[in-house]
Amino acid sequence: MSDVETTFDRLLKLPGVMGAILVNGEGEAVRTSMDSTSSSIFAGKMRPMVKMARALVHEVEPTDELTYLRMRTLKSEILVAAENEHMIILVQDTNILDEARRNSSSSSKKSE
Amino acid sequence: MSDVETTFDRLLKLPGVMGAILVNGEGEAVRTSMDSTSSSIFAGKMRPMVKMARALVHEVEPTDELTYLRMRTLKSEILVAAENEHMIILVQDTNILDEARRNSSSSSKKSE
Repeated sequence: MSDVETTFDRLLKLPGVMGAILVNGEGEAVRTSMDSTSSSIFAGKMRPMVKMARALVHEVEPTDELTYLRMRTLKSEILVAAENEHMIILVQDTNILDEARRNSSSSSKKSE
Repeated sequence: MSDVETTFDRLLKLPGVMGAILVNGEGEAVRTSMDSTSSSIFAGKMRPMVKMARALVHEVEPTDELTYLRMRTLKSEILVAAENEHMIILVQDTNILDEARRNSSSSSKKSE
């Protein structure tokens, strides 16, 4: 299993995950936990957005680079990370995610 | 001063703020703390990205709505929030921002 597939499996265990999609360099969903309609919308439309974001970051500061893109909606938080030619899209439920973040911050503080 | 301008001034006081731009419905930077080159790149290029993100969110789930967009780069985190016809773009230093988030989470936990 490739590194990117290992990362994909790890992401699926994160709190509040509603779905994850692994997109290859041709814009095809090679692995997905979502229905085929959502998968193909995400796979097809996210690439031009990431391309636009990368170009913007480079134009403002040529030595800087996009690491990920996050879209917050009323219901979910969508993370898009590009690893080499692949792209990972992760959709999480905002309520569960926010709760997990609060807990995680406080427990990491306790262990200091 | 309008609500959106009050919000703008409040954002400028956040940790690690490198700059903020208030963009009107015509895509012009009506207030900015950044240089004119960066302001016009952000003001002009962010709108099509936000439009694309909104369309994507609606297509996947018609009852859902984009609240904000975040781009993480090696050096900064760029937040874009749309309020009515205005758009607020906020650029923060990642190191200062991450440190502030850790502190804020732990202090809010302490006061529970």
